[in-house]
Amino acid sequence: MSDYKAFRVELADKVAQVTINRPEKVNAMNADFWAEIIEIFRWVDATDEVRVVVLSGAGKHFSSGIDLMLLAQVGSQLGKDVGRNAETLRRKILELQASFNAVDQCRKPVLAAIQGYCLGGAIDLIAACDMRYATADAQFAIKEIDIGMAADVGTLQRLPRIIGDGMMRELAYTGRTIDGEEARRLGLVNRTFADASALLDGVMEIAREIAAKSPIAVRGTKEMIRYMRDHRVDDGLEYVATWNAAMLQSADLRVAMAAHMSKQKPEFAD
Amino acid sequence: MSDYKAFRVELADKVAQVTINRPEKVNAMNADFWAEIIEIFRWVDATDEVRVVVLSGAGKHFSSGIDLMLLAQVGSQLGKDVGRNAETLRRKILELQASFNAVDQCRKPVLAAIQGYCLGGAIDLIAACDMRYATADAQFAIKEIDIGMAADVGTLQRLPRIIGDGMMRELAYTGRTIDGEEARRLGLVNRTFADASALLDGVMEIAREIAAKSPIAVRGTKEMIRYMRDHRVDDGLEYVATWNAAMLQSADLRVAMAAHMSKQKPEFAD
Amino acid sequence: MSDYKAFRVELADKVAQVTINRPEKVNAMNADFWAEIIEIFRWVDATDEVRVVVLSGAGKHFSSGIDLMLLAQVGSQLGKDVGRNAETLRRKILELQASFNAVDQCRKPVLAAIQGYCLGGAIDLIAACDMRYATADAQFAIKEIDIGMAADVGTLQRLPRIIGDGMMRELAYTGRTIDGEEARRLGLVNRTFADASALLDGVMEIAREIAAKSPIAVRGTKEMIRYMRDHRVDDGLEYVATWNAAMLQSADLRVAMAAHMSKQKPEFAD
Amino acid sequence: MSDYKAFRVELADKVAQVTINRPEKVNAMNADFWAEIIEIFRWVDATDEVRVVVLSGAGKHFSSGIDLMLLAQVGSQLGKDVGRNAETLRRKILELQASFNAVDQCRKPVLAAIQGYCLGGAIDLIAACDMRYATADAQFAIKEIDIGMAADVGTLQRLPRIIGDGMMRELAYTGRTIDGEEARRLGLVNRTFADASALLDGVMEIAREIAAKSPIAVRGTKEMIRYMRDHRVDDGLEYVATWNAAMLQSADLRVAMAAHMSKQKPEFAD
Amino acid sequence: MSDYKAFRVELADKVAQVTINRPEKVNAMNADFWAEIIEIFRWVDATDEVRVVVLSGAGKHFSSGIDLMLLAQVGSQLGKDVGRNAETLRRKILELQASFNAVDQCRKPVLAAIQGYCLGGAIDLIAACDMRYATADAQFAIKEIDIGMAADVGTLQRLPRIIGDGMMRELAYTGRTIDGEEARRLGLVNRTFADASALLDGVMEIAREIAAKSPIAVRGTKEMIRYMRDHRVDDGLEYVATWNAAMLQSADLRVAMAAHMSKQKPEFAD
Amino acid sequence: MSDYKAFRVELADKVAQVTINRPEKVNAMNADFWAEIIEIFRWVDATDEVRVVVLSGAGKHFSSGIDLMLLAQVGSQLGKDVGRNAETLRRKILELQASFNAVDQCRKPVLAAIQGYCLGGAIDLIAACDMRYATADAQFAIKEIDIGMAADVGTLQRLPRIIGDGMMRELAYTGRTIDGEEARRLGLVNRTFADASALLDGVMEIAREIAAKSPIAVRGTKEMIRYMRDHRVDDGLEYVATWNAAMLQSADLRVAMAAHMSKQKPEFAD
Repeated sequence: MSDYKAFRVELADKVAQVTINRPEKVNAMNADFWAEIIEIFRWVDATDEVRVVVLSGAGKHFSSGIDLMLLAQVGSQLGKDVGRNAETLRRKILELQASFNAVDQCRKPVLAAIQGYCLGGAIDLIAACDMRYATADAQFAIKEIDIGMAADVGTLQRLPRIIGDGMMRELAYTGRTIDGEEARRLGLVNRTFADASALLDGVMEIAREIAAKSPIAVRGTKEMIRYMRDHRVDDGLEYVATWNAAMLQSADLRVAMAAHMSKQKPEFAD
Repeated sequence: MSDYKAFRVELADKVAQVTINRPEKVNAMNADFWAEIIEIFRWVDATDEVRVVVLSGAGKHFSSGIDLMLLAQVGSQLGKDVGRNAETLRRKILELQASFNAVDQCRKPVLAAIQGYCLGGAIDLIAACDMRYATADAQFAIKEIDIGMAADVGTLQRLPRIIGDGMMRELAYTGRTIDGEEARRLGLVNRTFADASALLDGVMEIAREIAAKSPIAVRGTKEMIRYMRDHRVDDGLEYVATWNAAMLQSADLRVAMAAHMSKQKPEFAD
Repeated sequence: MSDYKAFRVELADKVAQVTINRPEKVNAMNADFWAEIIEIFRWVDATDEVRVVVLSGAGKHFSSGIDLMLLAQVGSQLGKDVGRNAETLRRKILELQASFNAVDQCRKPVLAAIQGYCLGGAIDLIAACDMRYATADAQFAIKEIDIGMAADVGTLQRLPRIIGDGMMRELAYTGRTIDGEEARRLGLVNRTFADASALLDGVMEIAREIAAKSPIAVRGTKEMIRYMRDHRVDDGLEYVATWNAAMLQSADLRVAMAAHMSKQKPEFAD
Repeated sequence: MSDYKAFRVELADKVAQVTINRPEKVNAMNADFWAEIIEIFRWVDATDEVRVVVLSGAGKHFSSGIDLMLLAQVGSQLGKDVGRNAETLRRKILELQASFNAVDQCRKPVLAAIQGYCLGGAIDLIAACDMRYATADAQFAIKEIDIGMAADVGTLQRLPRIIGDGMMRELAYTGRTIDGEEARRLGLVNRTFADASALLDGVMEIAREIAAKSPIAVRGTKEMIRYMRDHRVDDGLEYVATWNAAMLQSADLRVAMAAHMSKQKPEFAD
Repeated sequence: MSDYKAFRVELADKVAQVTINRPEKVNAMNADFWAEIIEIFRWVDATDEVRVVVLSGAGKHFSSGIDLMLLAQVGSQLGKDVGRNAETLRRKILELQASFNAVDQCRKPVLAAIQGYCLGGAIDLIAACDMRYATADAQFAIKEIDIGMAADVGTLQRLPRIIGDGMMRELAYTGRTIDGEEARRLGLVNRTFADASALLDGVMEIAREIAAKSPIAVRGTKEMIRYMRDHRVDDGLEYVATWNAAMLQSADLRVAMAAHMSKQKPEFAD
Repeated sequence: MSDYKAFRVELADKVAQVTINRPEKVNAMNADFWAEIIEIFRWVDATDEVRVVVLSGAGKHFSSGIDLMLLAQVGSQLGKDVGRNAETLRRKILELQASFNAVDQCRKPVLAAIQGYCLGGAIDLIAACDMRYATADAQFAIKEIDIGMAADVGTLQRLPRIIGDGMMRELAYTGRTIDGEEARRLGLVNRTFADASALLDGVMEIAREIAAKSPIAVRGTKEMIRYMRDHRVDDGLEYVATWNAAMLQSADLRVAMAAHMSKQKPEFAD
């Protein structure tokens, strides 16, 4: 684990804890953030010992979203030709999207633990995670509408699959703030906790539980659910058959079976 | 705003209020209705001053669905050759669908305010709106099953994305009536109100709130959510990058930023 | 109705009651089960008199999922060459999937009535049904994760459309057991009942209600909803227009209309 | 057939001959052209007597493409805000595309007869036709590249399906002119003729031959091929089964069979 | 190899030779044909010793297409209700399609050897094969148009991918007959031969050549090309990576390498 | 232009000439090759001055495909668990694919100039280029079949769109070698030249011609054609309208128009 400017990264019990670490800036997403998050998730993907990731924010808030300084800086790079500016902007947006795609495409489950503010770009980020957990009084808002723009790093693309079409539109058009409880009722978060400490304990417990399962099985399961977000049922069935054609030859099934028979906890290789 | 037979159309505060206006016929959808709704939404789309639409029904009910006289009339146009009849029916259905596609594809948000009956074709209609709000005692039913036919102007196509697959099938197979409260629990409506008057006030307030946002941002947001109903996440990300390549060069971002800095309400051009 | 080893099949009032009938084995899915379920649903599809299916489990439980003996037997057929083993496994998985595809693609609604355990493969099965009803204390778990494998006969493919992406992942990664009440809140089941007897009565009543509707209308409705799980809204609209081009020429519309006028219960041909 | 400014329309022997009729302007596509072509093809679609369309250009050339005056006029409507200009341009392009979509989606076969220049927008137009025939010395070029823009009314979307990916790119990047013979070798045109007179005679003969077939069969065939341009083989098979479920009940099969038996020419109803 | 009524099946040198064997009826496709072809290709798929299939017709012709007696018989099963007839027809068409899907989805390459007539349903059949070879004077025609119907067992779905969109439409609308040479120029057949004897020799030689390759490699290659007919390039890349994840662990690579090094012919297990 | 081990890169007249530079190894693709090609195309994409790329091989041959040493090395990294090996192999294949995706997704046209051998992986590479040109005696073969594997870095995915389905399968199953002339007839290459020197001159001339066009127009055209390989016509039309909404506001149109009027050669900004 190298040294990061915008993050703190720890690894214990096969769970990587990735913490956005700019509490004095409400964990706003600056240039360091966007670059380092890719590196971190590349490391997660490549490191067998990491089986699950918990993503959280240091201090009172999860994150206030993109750092407005960064936006201003992009603006300052534009020239006079509208067409060439459009090319520059398009590539910059694709580059920012790539940072959250790294979270989405990570082969290992990513659990977000959210307290305080979770605004704008922070919604785009948690929409790329596998599951979301929050304090009851966390505050969520799709703030992009109030900066005069359509959200473009993932919220509008991934959230409708999670919370459904109807309420999605209300939240995106109005930028209305909802708390953790309403987020839970909408399906945005899976469970709420009384405070930040209970939240982190609870999420770490779920993370460790998943980390104890067969890594082959967990990664295959994630790949299949991710695949179904964009594919047909018949394609999904064919894909899992092809996938399991190799994976069912892994030792993990025998390990799991043996543990089941002997009523013991299985130990899987990384 | 021209004169309509089946509708009343008003425009104030950048919100167009479109009211189905055949209360003596429970706002049943007759030939005028199907033709005029296209004209109205074409006008909405082309008129910069209109930023949001509120769609409601005059009198005690939202609408009882398609006028049975219209169905009978279509039947009377059929001849002896099954194949040619099939062509005639197919084109008639596509023509009726086009009326609600005009609502769905309208570039500006459409909020439905529903009281009393919302039956058959009326469900097809509200499924093409952006958001739905209702009185607690409104009555919803997919009535087509009781006329001996599969709903064919949008309910079966758009509703599963809104309320999920499981309850969708029960409502479509049984034609069971649900009230506003159950509709809210299923995600069919976003919020319920005590009575028709509170409903309209509430919906108009949400509409005016949206109308005060950047029109560029609202229209982009709608286009992106609409797009995701039918496309992959990776395609959606590429599409919003291409879209925002132009739109982020709009003045609306500067207006929004300046307002944010000066803590004032932004004023966006139409 | 031929004689089945793993099932009991009855037909009354146009409703086929299909019962998994190995209560002494917690209705575990053995080789007979996988073969017979295809035959049964082929018969359902071909028999005009059957209009609706109710699927349940004999005894205290719905089903504990795939019979582990069957898994072991597949394992014993493998040889030394990884590639050829992969081909064998892939074809075996596709073969098992075909059994539940027969349920999914059956032209007539299939209602699952679930009490007690509904584990592993049993979740794959009910995800292929149209609607699910359960006792409040039924127990659901995606058990495959604990055998060291990704579920591969339908759960990961069909369930996300029913319960949404967020909770789906938690249940699939952890294998956590939920009861009927939580299943209802997540949208996995449509309604819960106090006990197995009330459950079966309730589900049979819904089944008979659907069986009294126009079979042409019910089958068209099912086809359209099934189609929308994997297709675009515009394709769905074109498909229903093509479908109804023939079906609106059926007598069922006239029968339904006449009954509506005369306030009598319609009688539809099979 | 009403009076058109940019076209001449004749109907004989069930074949509509639609001629671009601005020979003094090399049949450049002006505002009248774009509006009238929609009207004409709506009429074609709605008129049972029309079974096939032949599309050609009056004078020495088929068409030189979009009228540059029209482009200049669109440019003059732009204002200062890049975002709002983008919206205006996007809608204008979609509007122009709709004119050629009317050709593409016409239920009846459209045969293009091409002599002389076929440049820029004219390639977009013929790509929306069913089949293309040309004089050996006709001249084809994707001219948009030389105006500094990507072709946006259909060439880049429809042509790759017709001539393949490799040569498509060369022609689109270089704007190179090819003659009728090379066009035939690439699959862009089906056959070449010695001169304009032989061309029109030859195309009219093919048109009349198609017009003598069952209109139900021809329209169904067109719908299926059009559908396959964008859909999967399995979807296409299901679609044609649904379509023919009605169409095989038409009298045309009996008429065709009877003619076949009696060795006589069948006469089909319009 | 059981006894077939409409076919003759032989197996030698790992090549199954499947011959339509009703020469006295111009190999017209009767009820036996449609049922047996499924059985045969199921056997091909399940029999490791069969690595390649050559499909041909006994006598002077490949096949004249569907037996008109069969069509007449289907017609005689129809009743009075248009809707129920539509259901019957739709299912019958799907059933016939399934016969050719069995050819298309067979895991082993199918080479068609075509002499004489190849008409109507015979085109649907060869479009489901991997490759087509013909005598120079073979005669191909999409005859369905002359029976008053759109081809519905595969021609309109599979052929556009093989011969391109432009000529496809001409052949389908006109039913024009083309000979083997023109078929080769259009890409419908890969090569022509002087006569039926040279044809069969030539095709058997290609078949034996393929049969000598690694069966794992050939089947994987077929699956990938089949997949690309209906999927995106990025999906195809992900699919082959998943597939080869297992298959590259097969012994066939080592066998091929060793043979390559020692300049000997490799011998692969079935 | 940094120093590369497996390539030589030159830039002149806005054309980057990228040459595989291991002639003593028949330009076999070793580890350096796979890593450097990504870097090079990232540089191409980011460098405004580069408008077109010409890709060729130093010495007598284009390339003999993947270096067998590299394959052996991958094999040596495998362990005992089939499942974990499958994960390793899958990720390695995806990594190799990424190298050619960089060519495919490069925003600027890539022209391949091919002489001598173009075997195995080299076919995968040229299938990712925009256009292909060859000497008449160049030799092409899909050699993967003879190593006992299905090609997995692009040939089976991209080539069917270029040469059609029928001949594609023959070449992939047999590994048959074709020369430049046959490749041209199949559409694999656009044009052949007498020898390597004429080839490079000819391709450079086409490259310079494209480099003189508006870069905005060329890049937009490439994006649209690339998009159509995997998308529907209606999606493509909407996409180009959104794209051109920004790009038509570029100065390049005015520059092109002015040059057109004054009959001079336009000069476009990079």
